[in-house]
Amino acid sequence: MMRKCSGQFGTLSGARIKLGVKELKKQSIGIGLMGLGVVGGEVARVLMDKAEVLAEQVGCPLVLRKVKVLESDLAKPQAKEMGLQLFTTDADEFFAEPEMDIVVEAIGGEEPALDYLKRALSGGKHVVTSNKEVIAKHGAELFALAQQYGVGLRCEASVGGGIPLIAPFQQDLVANKISGIYAIINGTTNYILTRMAREGTDFASALKRAQELGYAEANPEDDVDGIDATYKLAILASLAFHCQVQPQDIHCEGISRLDSRDFKYARELGFAIKLLAIAKQGDSWIEVRVHPVFIPEESLLAKVDGVYNAILVEADLVGKVLFYGEGAGALPTSSAVVADVVSAAQDIIAGGGSRARWRLEPGKIIKPMSELETRYYLRLNVADRPGVLAQVSKVLGDHLISISSVIQQAADSVSQTAEIVIMTHPAQEREMQQALDELGHLASVKQICNFIRVEA
Amino acid sequence: MMRKCSGQFGTLSGARIKLGVKELKKQSIGIGLMGLGVVGGEVARVLMDKAEVLAEQVGCPLVLRKVKVLESDLAKPQAKEMGLQLFTTDADEFFAEPEMDIVVEAIGGEEPALDYLKRALSGGKHVVTSNKEVIAKHGAELFALAQQYGVGLRCEASVGGGIPLIAPFQQDLVANKISGIYAIINGTTNYILTRMAREGTDFASALKRAQELGYAEANPEDDVDGIDATYKLAILASLAFHCQVQPQDIHCEGISRLDSRDFKYARELGFAIKLLAIAKQGDSWIEVRVHPVFIPEESLLAKVDGVYNAILVEADLVGKVLFYGEGAGALPTSSAVVADVVSAAQDIIAGGGSRARWRLEPGKIIKPMSELETRYYLRLNVADRPGVLAQVSKVLGDHLISISSVIQQAADSVSQTAEIVIMTHPAQEREMQQALDELGHLASVKQICNFIRVEA
Repeated sequence: MMRKCSGQFGTLSGARIKLGVKELKKQSIGIGLMGLGVVGGEVARVLMDKAEVLAEQVGCPLVLRKVKVLESDLAKPQAKEMGLQLFTTDADEFFAEPEMDIVVEAIGGEEPALDYLKRALSGGKHVVTSNKEVIAKHGAELFALAQQYGVGLRCEASVGGGIPLIAPFQQDLVANKISGIYAIINGTTNYILTRMAREGTDFASALKRAQELGYAEANPEDDVDGIDATYKLAILASLAFHCQVQPQDIHCEGISRLDSRDFKYARELGFAIKLLAIAKQGDSWIEVRVHPVFIPEESLLAKVDGVYNAILVEADLVGKVLFYGEGAGALPTSSAVVADVVSAAQDIIAGGGSRARWRLEPGKIIKPMSELETRYYLRLNVADRPGVLAQVSKVLGDHLISISSVIQQAADSVSQTAEIVIMTHPAQEREMQQALDELGHLASVKQICNFIRVEA
Repeated sequence: MMRKCSGQFGTLSGARIKLGVKELKKQSIGIGLMGLGVVGGEVARVLMDKAEVLAEQVGCPLVLRKVKVLESDLAKPQAKEMGLQLFTTDADEFFAEPEMDIVVEAIGGEEPALDYLKRALSGGKHVVTSNKEVIAKHGAELFALAQQYGVGLRCEASVGGGIPLIAPFQQDLVANKISGIYAIINGTTNYILTRMAREGTDFASALKRAQELGYAEANPEDDVDGIDATYKLAILASLAFHCQVQPQDIHCEGISRLDSRDFKYARELGFAIKLLAIAKQGDSWIEVRVHPVFIPEESLLAKVDGVYNAILVEADLVGKVLFYGEGAGALPTSSAVVADVVSAAQDIIAGGGSRARWRLEPGKIIKPMSELETRYYLRLNVADRPGVLAQVSKVLGDHLISISSVIQQAADSVSQTAEIVIMTHPAQEREMQQALDELGHLASVKQICNFIRVEA
């Protein structure tokens, strides 16, 4: 079934391309792999197990030439199976490999991955990476470097595991102006929220269960505080809106302040609670934020449970499209990495430079969070005496926040407090923050238990 | 913002490619459009309205060179806006246009579209089509022709409107072995089923409403009988499984035999009823079928309502991924067509032939429907007398069909009949068909009202 390459193929390195010379037929595409962890190990396995199918797709074999590993990786059974001569712990030796057309980076983290990616690109290698942090923080610089050296930089695996997302933004939706992205892109938090919603458990025990099952790390802050989601949203928003959104541009709130009572009220009011990564685009502005939201329980995103991810895109031509699947894990991530490798190999064989581009349009500003306009859910613990609701309503009214519904729970006779839940009509974030501040100073308000934005 | 093309680009026509000569820099990509109906008109509009963004993406402008229309189209305001010199009603004149690199076919139907597509491909033009019928019936022949002439044949818009589906199968999921496709790919039937489920209306009035709203045609048979879904499934299965599935290979049942009572029981039993296009692949076999199914009400596909489409794909690496969006309409379809045009233009500029391939692996057989094994829902109208359920159970038991649950409705005193609803454990289709035949001959069974397969 293996088909030999035919026809004249382009040359590979930046230097050679500048000479404009067409050289040899390409007999194979050489791959260098950095990292033999969960993702890297699986990528190596797929490249070998599926060599025949992949060669058929590309037109010639993809051959693993060199693997950069840590000392500790050399003891792994997989390393021995693959043949130790493939491995090096030395980056210089790795980059000295002459038959390497594509570098796959599966190390993760900011450094030394960033340094390696720059070395690969400026050495004229096409690059495939699953590294969300590096792309989120340094994407613009790296894409510019790729363009300078006439090679491709691909990062499909950096967001949403095996779910096709980057390619759709760069290719399938290319004729669209994208107006909004609404994404569940962190499996750990979605698992925790699903347990809290289904079982009425509190945050701490849902997190503990997620850790026991391996869905959350021992240090879960990156996930539960929303940091991981900001990396992924920065990448999606940058590609969709043709600009450079940095993680620190994104307003970010995690899920740890959610209480089982919020889920109870959400259900009563017809909502689910999800950690959403939201990006919207207007003519001159971009809005980017990650925080818990109320979404209508009949919406598709509300049905996305457990560790699954889903990304809803709104655009002028295509309307609403949604992509759903496993957002992490070795197998789905390797699916995306290998697809990128095949695409890079096809670029190399076509010889016309890379199609993987990051188009930048200047002039968009990031809208300050204070200008957000949305509906709010508000849960307050108040003194159980007459006139309190009137006081609360007055503070909200003073800030032009109008109430759409109120639930008042039967008072607790021991503490002499009552719980009030308020849903507002659309209001401005600046006004809401000021109102919350004033409510906090009212003697009758014992505690502002929570406030959650609503996304319709 | 417009960027000039740079670098050496490949030549275009099949004949020239054979000479292996590199000629001029490409200053623009010429488009020929066939058809100015709902889709064609919108494609023309997008190509003009978004010219700048598309040129940026491709590297040089996409220029509409010639539009093949019907006499009646010439009176359209759009034709006058675009300038009548662009138009011709004569196919020979259309194909004689020298500056045409890509032909977009938006005529629909089998002929003359098939003839035009062959002319375009054998004339060395890259082709983009939204024509599901031609691709479903003649895909293999047309892809072979494209390969022979070194050009691309793209058909993203033929299935699922603007939802990226073909590209994911051909690119993003390229490292996967796809085991199953479960698709809601006909908006008309999904709209009708949604109304029947929500409002308890019968098929005839739900169809009438769909026709009034323009969601169903005056002659709705292609949609409601499942024909349209078989075209789309033939395309998806062929691409996903690397084989040639013809529409006539697909077992097909429409939705007209569904009754409001079936929806009532489905809800009681925890299911939704959807018209699913299902394709599964084993080592040596393929299973392809379109018919109404019971699916668990908590599954994502069960939540896909109205005219929306959704396609669930199961594969070895990526697990489950789902694509959701508007499956029809001028805007979404034009999104897919124009994305294909951009991709073809990028191929032309890269000069290395086309990436759009249809890989064929021989040796798969289509599993006969009789070998299907699944659960069944069965609704019977029986005489209201003792021992009837025992008779029915015996017939099923004789065919190794075991019952998982039974609902028996209170008898109707006038007709002296009762309704029995049976859910079975997994059973073989051959046995079920024989059992249905025998049940039909029992004196106590007045009518086999319906039987519906269950997909877990």
